[in-house]
Amino acid sequence: MTGSRPAEIRVSEIFGPTIQGEGALIGLPTVFVRTGGCDYRCSWCDSLHAVDSRYRDEWRPMSTEEVWQKVTSLSGGRPLMVSLSGGNPAIQPLGDLIACGHAQGYRFALETQGSVARDWFADLDVLVLSPKPPSSGMETDWDALGDCLQASAGKPQTILKIVVFDEADYSYARHAAARYPQLPVYLQPGNHTPPPPEEHDAPIDIEGVTERMRWLVERITEDRWFEARVLPQLHVLLWGNKRGV
Amino acid sequence: MTGSRPAEIRVSEIFGPTIQGEGALIGLPTVFVRTGGCDYRCSWCDSLHAVDSRYRDEWRPMSTEEVWQKVTSLSGGRPLMVSLSGGNPAIQPLGDLIACGHAQGYRFALETQGSVARDWFADLDVLVLSPKPPSSGMETDWDALGDCLQASAGKPQTILKIVVFDEADYSYARHAAARYPQLPVYLQPGNHTPPPPEEHDAPIDIEGVTERMRWLVERITEDRWFEARVLPQLHVLLWGNKRGV
Repeated sequence: MTGSRPAEIRVSEIFGPTIQGEGALIGLPTVFVRTGGCDYRCSWCDSLHAVDSRYRDEWRPMSTEEVWQKVTSLSGGRPLMVSLSGGNPAIQPLGDLIACGHAQGYRFALETQGSVARDWFADLDVLVLSPKPPSSGMETDWDALGDCLQASAGKPQTILKIVVFDEADYSYARHAAARYPQLPVYLQPGNHTPPPPEEHDAPIDIEGVTERMRWLVERITEDRWFEARVLPQLHVLLWGNKRGV
Repeated sequence: MTGSRPAEIRVSEIFGPTIQGEGALIGLPTVFVRTGGCDYRCSWCDSLHAVDSRYRDEWRPMSTEEVWQKVTSLSGGRPLMVSLSGGNPAIQPLGDLIACGHAQGYRFALETQGSVARDWFADLDVLVLSPKPPSSGMETDWDALGDCLQASAGKPQTILKIVVFDEADYSYARHAAARYPQLPVYLQPGNHTPPPPEEHDAPIDIEGVTERMRWLVERITEDRWFEARVLPQLHVLLWGNKRGV
């Protein structure tokens, strides 16, 4: 067969509605489209099942229509926020999905580390740029992050969300915030007990996570960094490492 | 001595900065000015030390200047969000405090049940109207709530925050939201183990609170009420019933 075939989206899971557990949209009912594949390998990744190619056979290539059908089915056809996450959703062809959803009143938030810019970022309602701090073992390409911002053309509500495990991460967060003074900043204490991909309901060190959260609150108030917001992963506090909630 | 004496503010406590634990400003560094005295007596009040006149001798009448000095001292003179809470802060003379803080770049959020309207509501940055559901034992005066909205003159960011313990409260929340379709709605699971005013660090049934939170998430997603946000009292999850954090 010849001719162009519509690009397929590599999907790890589609679930919801449940509330967004993180960042600026915390608490908001959301359907999650988690894509498979990532150009990063963060040491503490909490979504390895959508990142590591060992789990590739769990990912499904789906057409835009198939993904859209699943989203409308989960939401009963009633418009809501759709979160595009991963992995790195920026490496998937999601422009058509966004256009399709917008036509029916849905909204779209995308969360990415900011390593790959796409022109359809400008069509998003919310763009969450989440560059990874030193504890991840990754190196930030600030030019690429700048390209992402440029691609968004100032159209979506854009926020900076940074995971913080330790002092080095905290310094990194301050540096990132200083680079983009126009962006609201959300700090998120890291989960040092991420789920192993094989286990769907692995135990989690809640006390350790809340302890890091309290430390982070102290840290920003000591520094009088009053523009930053500190928020936990609410779903982790409510459901632990359970998937699909 | 004759002549007009500037009105004094009855203060229960001033503390912070710490993060806002509830509602639209969750996670944001904030100094709290908690006023003493309330026209309500909610059955599950979690701030009885600022409500019940038995604790009146712990409240201090302070001038606007005294309150302002304490706020600037706690924040090191660096502008941030000031939360005016109570009790019902609407029964205190807070207009001058807001003007004074604005002149120095501070912002003000006020949280009230909406039983008393003040013309200075229009000077706020954020107005949180938190009418009380049936489980509180209080009756909502919808006209008074409407007066509060009118007093705000559409100037502050205004949100509706409703505590939910059970099905009756949930129905009340739906009714309130339907009355004010223009207002963002935040639902908050109730804490059935509020602190006794004599104890500053009473134990709390965290599991019970998170269970109610999970129920509330299920409830809104079942109903496809996708405009409502559900958020816990974050400070309770992080610090239990401890005061001043």
